[in-house]
Amino acid sequence: MTALSLPRPPLSGASYSAVEFDTVAAQVVMLEQRLLPARIEYRRYEDAAAVAEAITAMVVRGAPAIGIAAAYGLVLEALHERGDGGAFAARMETASVRLGRARPTAVNLAWAIARMGRCAARVADSAPDARAAAMLAEAEAIHREDVEACRRMGELGAARVPQGATILTHCNAGALATGGYGTALGVIRAAHAMGKQIRVLADETRPYLQGARLTSWELNQDGIEVEVITDSMAAFFFARGEIDFCVVGSDRIARNGDVANKIGTYNVAVLAREHGVPFTVAAPFSTVDLACPDGASIPIEERGRDEVARIGDTVLVADGIGCRHPAFDVTPARLVDEIYTERGMIRPAKGELPTQLASAGGGE
Amino acid sequence: MTALSLPRPPLSGASYSAVEFDTVAAQVVMLEQRLLPARIEYRRYEDAAAVAEAITAMVVRGAPAIGIAAAYGLVLEALHERGDGGAFAARMETASVRLGRARPTAVNLAWAIARMGRCAARVADSAPDARAAAMLAEAEAIHREDVEACRRMGELGAARVPQGATILTHCNAGALATGGYGTALGVIRAAHAMGKQIRVLADETRPYLQGARLTSWELNQDGIEVEVITDSMAAFFFARGEIDFCVVGSDRIARNGDVANKIGTYNVAVLAREHGVPFTVAAPFSTVDLACPDGASIPIEERGRDEVARIGDTVLVADGIGCRHPAFDVTPARLVDEIYTERGMIRPAKGELPTQLASAGGGE
Repeated sequence: MTALSLPRPPLSGASYSAVEFDTVAAQVVMLEQRLLPARIEYRRYEDAAAVAEAITAMVVRGAPAIGIAAAYGLVLEALHERGDGGAFAARMETASVRLGRARPTAVNLAWAIARMGRCAARVADSAPDARAAAMLAEAEAIHREDVEACRRMGELGAARVPQGATILTHCNAGALATGGYGTALGVIRAAHAMGKQIRVLADETRPYLQGARLTSWELNQDGIEVEVITDSMAAFFFARGEIDFCVVGSDRIARNGDVANKIGTYNVAVLAREHGVPFTVAAPFSTVDLACPDGASIPIEERGRDEVARIGDTVLVADGIGCRHPAFDVTPARLVDEIYTERGMIRPAKGELPTQLASAGGGE
Repeated sequence: MTALSLPRPPLSGASYSAVEFDTVAAQVVMLEQRLLPARIEYRRYEDAAAVAEAITAMVVRGAPAIGIAAAYGLVLEALHERGDGGAFAARMETASVRLGRARPTAVNLAWAIARMGRCAARVADSAPDARAAAMLAEAEAIHREDVEACRRMGELGAARVPQGATILTHCNAGALATGGYGTALGVIRAAHAMGKQIRVLADETRPYLQGARLTSWELNQDGIEVEVITDSMAAFFFARGEIDFCVVGSDRIARNGDVANKIGTYNVAVLAREHGVPFTVAAPFSTVDLACPDGASIPIEERGRDEVARIGDTVLVADGIGCRHPAFDVTPARLVDEIYTERGMIRPAKGELPTQLASAGGGE
């Protein structure tokens, strides 16, 4: 295991972290998640463009984590800029545009960049060191608040998990997808901590295999019982009555309660409803996009053919044959039984709307 | 391409074949399907035990194809046996038991072995060469009838496919899974031949990736438009209204119309019903098991962890973490809109039963 070498331990308190900031080296440090579970290697980045590339390439993934990575990417630019307020503002703008284009679906990315932008506007006329310090403090606040939000939504969700439940989750909405602790896996961790005797079935989550590679690895490290299944096996276990509860993360929640998340999530929601099992979502309030009326308005990223057609050196689909690769799907609010956030819970399937959480206030 | 070298061309008339019998070399010749699409290599087998091992290891797969392979495996034993009728019967019995245990779910395997057993009983007291010739003729009849059955069910099913349809299929129920032409892919081939301007979405079908590796390869060779999707993407395309028709094969159809097929088929059926799209099955009547009352009585094969945890040299799930691997699932009759066989069509979702086909007669 390549140790995570930092001036201070990860903000979440865990032994590993998706993204951290090395204040001494002035580098963003990210776990190369594409190599997990075979190898644990951290990569270091020195400017926002490199961070943006790493986000696009999925070195780091998970809606909250890429928001934090982008925030730290802007800190790098703030540290490098020694010019006046105009130069600083221009550099922040350029870097923000670059980072904002890295991936389209997760709103947390745009949210974090906008929050850093407001900070930049406040401090633009300060001295270079003070500007950079303020930007670092803001990025760390985003990071720290995300960990706290995960813990709060985890407790809320865990209270809803039945004793002895087998929980199905899809993709990785864990410590590796967030500032630490996790959204959906935060619910699972909190339920485990409450002594609920849960076990987890993790959808492998093709094509990127975040469930197989990341979720099972995280849960296994925490001593939580987990088994991996291929995505289409979930239906089999639903039919046998072996799944009691579903929880996933989200990349964007529209104003009407529609939920965008990793491709395959909608499939889980249809199956859960068909078999009378609760389908729930855990996400920080920064995932709610009140400017987005519904799921149809959420941009769905289409990624490359080869991410479907190959795994490692193995060719799965013969050259010349097309593959589709929508990276996300939308689950309509009517199939979403509960959403847990740090501001409370709503029940979209019963008509409750994210706007109820907006008025619950708390933070930016 | 390693050419298929045989004294005569494949019985189906295609340029490749899952299983053939080389009468000069006295060998069963099978395409090593685990290497597709990267390499086309044929393997040769000289006794029933080796054929049984190849079936278990999935060198050959697909319910009709493994039945044909087993039949040819018994021909090898008939050719090798020079003793009296008792010795012949004993040898057939031993080989039949060995072959019958190769895989549990597909009833075509047991059906083909039973049919070969009846032939063996009829000819046991003939001279060794005559016995072997009769067994070869019977195995070739099974093979030839399967190809004819595929063509007949293909025409029946194709008549039900809408003009311009996008068709979803799961796993590989093609030439590679049968004596040739295919069951579900037979429907697709026949619809294409009728000029219906169809296109196909092929579920990749984890863990064995028969859709990615085999179905797309077969259809592409025939000039039928095909794109591969991961299994959980089907829900996304259903939601967008891009799927008009579903057709799959089957490993066993129970007396009440429940259908066992490759893991993930039930998922497709749930999605099809949810989105108002026809879910149909193409299978020879030898797939119908009238002795089996319902899906709950069908044995579901559980295969090994590593088939889920690894692809090629790539480790998907860290060592020490469990994986589940049911290889088949059962779709209840209520979700099966139509079943096409060489004896006609039934509509299980409307309460029609396979017994209606039994009385339609035709062959053994």
